[in-house]
Amino acid sequence: MRTDPSIHPRPHDPAPVRLAPGGEFDLIRRFLAGPAPAERPDVRVGPGDDCAVVAGDGIALSTDMSVEGVHFRRDWLAAEEIGWRAAAAALSDLAAVAARPIGILVSLAAPPDDAGDYAARVMAGCREAVESVGGALLGGDLTRSPGPLVIDVTVVGEAPRPALRSGARPGQELWVTGELGGSAAAVEALLAGREPNPAARERFARPRPRVREAQWLHARNIPTALVDLSDGLAGDAAHLSAASGVAMLLAPELIPIHPAARERSKVRSLRRALGGGEDYELCFAAAVGAVGPFHTAFEQAFQVRLSCVGRAGGGDGVWFVDAEGHRRPTGIVGWQHFGGGTP
Amino acid sequence: MRTDPSIHPRPHDPAPVRLAPGGEFDLIRRFLAGPAPAERPDVRVGPGDDCAVVAGDGIALSTDMSVEGVHFRRDWLAAEEIGWRAAAAALSDLAAVAARPIGILVSLAAPPDDAGDYAARVMAGCREAVESVGGALLGGDLTRSPGPLVIDVTVVGEAPRPALRSGARPGQELWVTGELGGSAAAVEALLAGREPNPAARERFARPRPRVREAQWLHARNIPTALVDLSDGLAGDAAHLSAASGVAMLLAPELIPIHPAARERSKVRSLRRALGGGEDYELCFAAAVGAVGPFHTAFEQAFQVRLSCVGRAGGGDGVWFVDAEGHRRPTGIVGWQHFGGGTP
Repeated sequence: MRTDPSIHPRPHDPAPVRLAPGGEFDLIRRFLAGPAPAERPDVRVGPGDDCAVVAGDGIALSTDMSVEGVHFRRDWLAAEEIGWRAAAAALSDLAAVAARPIGILVSLAAPPDDAGDYAARVMAGCREAVESVGGALLGGDLTRSPGPLVIDVTVVGEAPRPALRSGARPGQELWVTGELGGSAAAVEALLAGREPNPAARERFARPRPRVREAQWLHARNIPTALVDLSDGLAGDAAHLSAASGVAMLLAPELIPIHPAARERSKVRSLRRALGGGEDYELCFAAAVGAVGPFHTAFEQAFQVRLSCVGRAGGGDGVWFVDAEGHRRPTGIVGWQHFGGGTP
Repeated sequence: MRTDPSIHPRPHDPAPVRLAPGGEFDLIRRFLAGPAPAERPDVRVGPGDDCAVVAGDGIALSTDMSVEGVHFRRDWLAAEEIGWRAAAAALSDLAAVAARPIGILVSLAAPPDDAGDYAARVMAGCREAVESVGGALLGGDLTRSPGPLVIDVTVVGEAPRPALRSGARPGQELWVTGELGGSAAAVEALLAGREPNPAARERFARPRPRVREAQWLHARNIPTALVDLSDGLAGDAAHLSAASGVAMLLAPELIPIHPAARERSKVRSLRRALGGGEDYELCFAAAVGAVGPFHTAFEQAFQVRLSCVGRAGGGDGVWFVDAEGHRRPTGIVGWQHFGGGTP
């Protein structure tokens, strides 16, 4: 449930918050209602993109909170995996602006019985995740919780030239890294009491934020607009659409579905790939032909697929499009965490 | 319950974590056990001081989590006050390194019924607090909580030359801003079901982080070691002591006790002033005579008292000292939040 709402996505750009539709985002818009903050030379990107970017050198910042019973369950994951996942979700926001990680701060609220060993193992998982992408554990806070375990991870990175959500133009291609729906397939199995497919479980328990992949692409000036996939392709493409002022036209047959998320029913498979959250892949727009010369080098360097899944068009919203260019609704809304009610 | 543990409090200083004794800090040391992170040119101050400081320009960062039933109760405070307090506690860490605030990121976990209006009011309080010290609301996260309201605030500031905890030397004077124990007096009254003294309640509900005061003092090179008072003077002086490798010798008759915290019993009054947390005043060491020339100007500029409360000496720990220089234990341990058990 990422928010990071936006007042002015560019330096001194007085544009209002440009977020996709949805109840959560309506609330965020309300948080930021009232007079916009004065123009500040020390805030280059305000709330609303994947990270805020501050200070002259471009320091990218984002925060992501994980709550037991909403984002994870202890009977599904080891303590270290809970920490890794929480940190990876936040680090994925650094990937989304193509920042180089400096480190993370971790706040942990733990029930009294878990404030010792268990908390240390959660923290070890956070640390392992940030070190896997070249960052450090910078500090944190530890407090008691009278309820669920709560982990809030703030990421800090260098982004002298941050990649934003707002640069897609009609006609450009839309690309994604990796394969989608694996994490959702694991959650479906766990909710049904089944052992998940091991590859799907790995996608859920140890997601790999595409930090280095994003820097690689950005260094070659490939993405014109970039976002990470935390809420599912349908939901996150809607953020690119809203921020860029274009429609996103997805070709369903081109969407790379994780092997563990594939079913006989194409509709169910697509639903996992588009509506399933927490894949932490990248989605970006690029000028026609811009990816081509680098496609093989990228896949060889990272052992991660790179797939064109459609293009940007005039208008707004996210649509399926057929070979003749006819648009139809995807019928898929963004990812809802499994903890729909109070457990 | 501030932690922000420390591996290397100076650039390339491989010293181990130097925190005051205590169970919480033992746990923090464990989080940071194992090989120290490699020396990083982008981490100038690691975990352990009041803020981490990163990047070439010196970006100060800290995070502080507030949990319903542990740090606040909703029947004691309005939603805006809960937000203000949470943000002020975090902003006080910027004061503790004499940073200039850029802004805050706020993560909020709220029960479903409170995710609308109530959450927006909490966020408005956070925003008001950061704007009161010249910073901006930069972003955040909003999620559901199946339990208590949880607010995590990460502060970001500029500190090209951060004030640390580690520079006090034997013989130097120890100073505090403001008057201590007001917040603790309010909590005592609330716990007893009494209406708190209005001035004490204001100290509890709307603490003023001493951000500008710290910058003023630091600009004049007055503090040799600086900390903010979140856990009470006895506990926070112990951090200065541990980080600087000196003893802190308090003269009990010099300690400025908030009028609402004064009682006939001098012992009880002192206990509030030394053991009561959440005053969010500053405590710093200074060379003998360094404060004198600026004393009146400071008090006139900020309408805040500045009091010499003792001095640093050889050895370690925090002690009461009499006119003859004899040391005796304070008998006061750090602040425990009122929510001692699960409510």
